[in-house]
Amino acid sequence: MDYTALLASLGHTLPPCPTPLAAYVPATRTGNLIFVSGQLPVQNGTLLATGSVPELSDVETAKKAAAQCFVNGLSAALTQLQPHESTLRLLLVQGFVQSSQGFSQQPQVVNGASELAIATMGDLGKHARAAVGVASLPLNASVEVAFQFEVVG
Amino acid sequence: MDYTALLASLGHTLPPCPTPLAAYVPATRTGNLIFVSGQLPVQNGTLLATGSVPELSDVETAKKAAAQCFVNGLSAALTQLQPHESTLRLLLVQGFVQSSQGFSQQPQVVNGASELAIATMGDLGKHARAAVGVASLPLNASVEVAFQFEVVG
Amino acid sequence: MDYTALLASLGHTLPPCPTPLAAYVPATRTGNLIFVSGQLPVQNGTLLATGSVPELSDVETAKKAAAQCFVNGLSAALTQLQPHESTLRLLLVQGFVQSSQGFSQQPQVVNGASELAIATMGDLGKHARAAVGVASLPLNASVEVAFQFEVVG
Repeated sequence: MDYTALLASLGHTLPPCPTPLAAYVPATRTGNLIFVSGQLPVQNGTLLATGSVPELSDVETAKKAAAQCFVNGLSAALTQLQPHESTLRLLLVQGFVQSSQGFSQQPQVVNGASELAIATMGDLGKHARAAVGVASLPLNASVEVAFQFEVVG
Repeated sequence: MDYTALLASLGHTLPPCPTPLAAYVPATRTGNLIFVSGQLPVQNGTLLATGSVPELSDVETAKKAAAQCFVNGLSAALTQLQPHESTLRLLLVQGFVQSSQGFSQQPQVVNGASELAIATMGDLGKHARAAVGVASLPLNASVEVAFQFEVVG
Repeated sequence: MDYTALLASLGHTLPPCPTPLAAYVPATRTGNLIFVSGQLPVQNGTLLATGSVPELSDVETAKKAAAQCFVNGLSAALTQLQPHESTLRLLLVQGFVQSSQGFSQQPQVVNGASELAIATMGDLGKHARAAVGVASLPLNASVEVAFQFEVVG
């Protein structure tokens, strides 16, 4: 699949693989299973959403930020493909939303990643998912999303 | 295995596969590995426990709710079996408990899922597990539990 | 690999496999994939760090505690090896840091586990990772870390 073109047709740019913040790697692979590190909504070096949702970052902004987490995660996953491989399936998404007290719309926020995955990958983007609200996240990001992919072709 | 009968003997009803809240699917499978989405304690359309534990939902109520998360997760996993398959093994449980400040009995709550898994599945229900306390959860649920199963027969 | 000697050279002692707090097992395995339960920073029966970071436990203390979580997780993983097997690869780390309001240095804390993994295992210790800040943890621990390993030899 030409994910660069697919994302571009959806208004997104496939970035270089994100640099980890610390002592780990962007992704690992065993067999056809790829584990992608938790992705923050960084675009061109800037976080798209910081602070708790909805107090400091509204749901729509955080949802767009979650879409960027998917773009970054896809970029990380693609580093694990061999030259003869080109197609991924998304198995699992874990979304963590920095949540103000009483906020319970984590699914709406994480949908930013899920909807873009399905728009980009079609049926291969249909994934299992957990979404929870957390007290805080690295760099004060509003959302962090981790992924597990499968290499299917 | 006849999970419907096993659960019935333990006082539980195997529900239809739960409908996801958003843009994802109840479960995915690769090889014999099944990823089940984070399950809320919904029974017949109603949440069994809402609010933080123990301030707004006591430990026993939240523990019973976690058992319902297992029932729902098993139902989701069963959708991934082929006609000639009938037996699951539970590999991993991730439990998220909406926790009041200073609450640290997440293991007791998530035991609701773990104990029912072992009662239902026997040795095949013995799983690795992580349990943490979170600020908030979708629909203001008191507990959310995600699962990974293996198809073993 | 002689992990006992490797850890000793780094100033750590490989403990007996940690006892789960509740109704689960320390680790499960399917094929060459090992799921390790969430590990608390227990050393000789005592937690190395309790309370939220940095208010009640400073970053350095919590980071050292995260290293202990790795040591405990490695011990749990080793129980899953067959007699002819001796070498693990670390695929995935999930770190949960009990965080005071506004704390966003979860990566620095979880680095305690990640850096020790790489020091002990070399390239086989390079892993994907997610780190988040949570409201509370079992036993009021400052950090909990879960692991997925692969058996490679």
